[in-house]
Amino acid sequence: MSEKLIKPQTLKGFRDFLPSAALARERLIDTAKRVYRSYGYAPIDTPALEYTEILLGKGGDESDKQMFRFEDQGGRDVAMRFDLTVPFARFAAQHAQELGLPFKRYHVGTVWRGERPQKGRFREFVQCDFDTIGTDSAASDAETLLVIHDLLVALGIERFSIRVNHRGVLNGLLESLGVRDKSASVLRALDKLAKAGREAVIKEMVEIAGLTSDAAESILRFCARTGPPGEVLSEVATQLDGVEISRLGIQTLRGLFEAADAAGVPASRLRLDLAIARGLDYYTGTIYETFLDDLPAIGSVCSGGRYDNLAGLFTKLPLPGVGASLGVDRLLAAMEELGLVADGATPATVLMTQFEPNRLRDYIAAAARLRGRGIAVEVFPEAKNVGKQFKYADRKGHRLVIVAGSDEFAARTWQIKTLATGEQTTVADTELVDAVSQLLNPG
Amino acid sequence: MSEKLIKPQTLKGFRDFLPSAALARERLIDTAKRVYRSYGYAPIDTPALEYTEILLGKGGDESDKQMFRFEDQGGRDVAMRFDLTVPFARFAAQHAQELGLPFKRYHVGTVWRGERPQKGRFREFVQCDFDTIGTDSAASDAETLLVIHDLLVALGIERFSIRVNHRGVLNGLLESLGVRDKSASVLRALDKLAKAGREAVIKEMVEIAGLTSDAAESILRFCARTGPPGEVLSEVATQLDGVEISRLGIQTLRGLFEAADAAGVPASRLRLDLAIARGLDYYTGTIYETFLDDLPAIGSVCSGGRYDNLAGLFTKLPLPGVGASLGVDRLLAAMEELGLVADGATPATVLMTQFEPNRLRDYIAAAARLRGRGIAVEVFPEAKNVGKQFKYADRKGHRLVIVAGSDEFAARTWQIKTLATGEQTTVADTELVDAVSQLLNPG
Repeated sequence: MSEKLIKPQTLKGFRDFLPSAALARERLIDTAKRVYRSYGYAPIDTPALEYTEILLGKGGDESDKQMFRFEDQGGRDVAMRFDLTVPFARFAAQHAQELGLPFKRYHVGTVWRGERPQKGRFREFVQCDFDTIGTDSAASDAETLLVIHDLLVALGIERFSIRVNHRGVLNGLLESLGVRDKSASVLRALDKLAKAGREAVIKEMVEIAGLTSDAAESILRFCARTGPPGEVLSEVATQLDGVEISRLGIQTLRGLFEAADAAGVPASRLRLDLAIARGLDYYTGTIYETFLDDLPAIGSVCSGGRYDNLAGLFTKLPLPGVGASLGVDRLLAAMEELGLVADGATPATVLMTQFEPNRLRDYIAAAARLRGRGIAVEVFPEAKNVGKQFKYADRKGHRLVIVAGSDEFAARTWQIKTLATGEQTTVADTELVDAVSQLLNPG
Repeated sequence: MSEKLIKPQTLKGFRDFLPSAALARERLIDTAKRVYRSYGYAPIDTPALEYTEILLGKGGDESDKQMFRFEDQGGRDVAMRFDLTVPFARFAAQHAQELGLPFKRYHVGTVWRGERPQKGRFREFVQCDFDTIGTDSAASDAETLLVIHDLLVALGIERFSIRVNHRGVLNGLLESLGVRDKSASVLRALDKLAKAGREAVIKEMVEIAGLTSDAAESILRFCARTGPPGEVLSEVATQLDGVEISRLGIQTLRGLFEAADAAGVPASRLRLDLAIARGLDYYTGTIYETFLDDLPAIGSVCSGGRYDNLAGLFTKLPLPGVGASLGVDRLLAAMEELGLVADGATPATVLMTQFEPNRLRDYIAAAARLRGRGIAVEVFPEAKNVGKQFKYADRKGHRLVIVAGSDEFAARTWQIKTLATGEQTTVADTELVDAVSQLLNPG
């Protein structure tokens, strides 16, 4: 064809999804949506492009967000969204009247950040958030926890723990120590505990936040408490007795554990962790992080919390809320490592080969009958070399291969081969659908 | 809060999806994916941003594509994809080795075009394509037809017709008239037949394509043939006897009708339409368009065809293929008009009200039991005014509302109200899940 070809390549930091990766991601996202819907969260969507002013917000630090920003055809200053939270704030402010409150939404969408690409970090990735806004009821805090739990279970993950904390408890502690005004820098230091270790955190609390080392030690001692949540919360309540702002936090946390128990969440999957702070100033109440027991080092796969006001930049209507965000890429990597991602590059479980070129009608008719039973069947497009068709099935990951040649058509039968075992069976045409169902779902 | 608020607004030509619209779109796309998968098409994804050079192709007419184009942080000339075909061509060329051929993919993705916004036309929209590449087997042409058919049926649409044609037949006709060299401009004119009418098309064929009016009349007479496809094809075969290029077209079209019959497609849903040409130079073989019997004026909701070579700009590997694209926005508008879009702004069918503030545990536990049976249940977050909770359910579109107050808790019962009828029933706690299932799916 052309003499000079254009080199086919993606931009640095961007990637293609080939079928096996795309299938795994699609399954994960479909599962997340199913769980969100089962609690009544409804989908929304917002544009990829927004006015830069909206994405930057007030005094926004652009370099922080590393937006893809440009002037559009109409001379507008626009940018690609770098998260789903700011667009949700804009959306909620703009449509509050029509949406009604409380409002529960999920949003699965692509976001873009011009960060330096690193292993496992891309300039384009999918976020998968859910939130309840317009209520400060602790029932929504509890529900957020249940959603996270059900989501991981639905993904086939059994061994994980959701760690919860409450900013009110931490702030009450700081108040009792007389350092409430240093909250932001203290919590930022505390957030590094798991990664940087105790000494580094104390150093930062003293040197940057300006605490005495006694106060820093007290905070770390407080946060290191372990034991049954009910008992720990009682101890905390005693220690912080009379500190008003911690009362609501303690009460909300108790409610979380009760709700989880009522919904049948095993106690082993839920932990009170007084050390989790999440650096974001955004959170004001409950905090959630989720760790996989078998891969703790990858960090939290689902995190969130409660905030006082979602959309203060855009509306005077106060919109308190609570929600969390699933780390899609991180979770996919983890599931792959745990062997929870099905292999294969095809969604079809069955390959119908073509052997006799003039029998396409029969192959198509049989495939249609199988699909009628909900079985995904691919018909190989060419009546060529059957060995090549078997190789195709091996490579793509079909589980069963169906063959019929002149003998089978004469006898009104089909041969079915199970690729994993090599077992082959011949069935009557009238038994085909039942036989395939049985082979795919034995027992 | 802030004194100066930022005005919450979307960019011109862009739109938010509120829950009812987002739910409808999500259901449509989920259905399309399910049908694609049932035939073994696998998902892929490509980045929103590509090198401009790749999207423009050779001698690309940028104004035509109205790309969102800019220089990224690294000084690269980049643009947002304006369709999924060019990225697929780049993808196929780049990964052909790893993918293996034949290769079947679907791709659901957002694309952007800086066109002047009009009613029903946006600068951001979703495309939903499927293709088989790497084979010129007519079995894939037939399968494309079956996928379109199953897709519309799965969406609940019963009355539609898929019109098929083949470029080889049209080109054979032009050859027989000695005007094969005018093919592009003649087909462009013919493509306007449904919209502009007979006279206008003849005028364009004469004035712009340079045909004699006799030749133009012959073409339109040829294309107006109706009748049982087998008969029409026999007539065409006789008329074009000896015109080599039309032979394959006639044979492929016969195969399509046979395959459709084998798969159980009602004959009423399939039409041979010798007048459909699709203006795109891109197509070289079969052509598909799909019209709704009850809304013909909205145009084709699923169109496609066969092409000789997908990725000639990027690779010397020939990649013939066939596929089609679902018009998501157009189909959604049509389904809404036909009453096929479920109302409601919530995916939950049941609202569990909170009546007794200290009974959250019980409400949560009952909701968890219902979810265990696959029922989507929303628990109202606040134990406030039950009237307000009923209004919420009315507004969101829940079908059932469950209530329990102190009397019910004492008697271990629940009240279930069906919103559509106002009927109310009291059931024992042990019967709750069965009763709700029964009310949601009677019979």
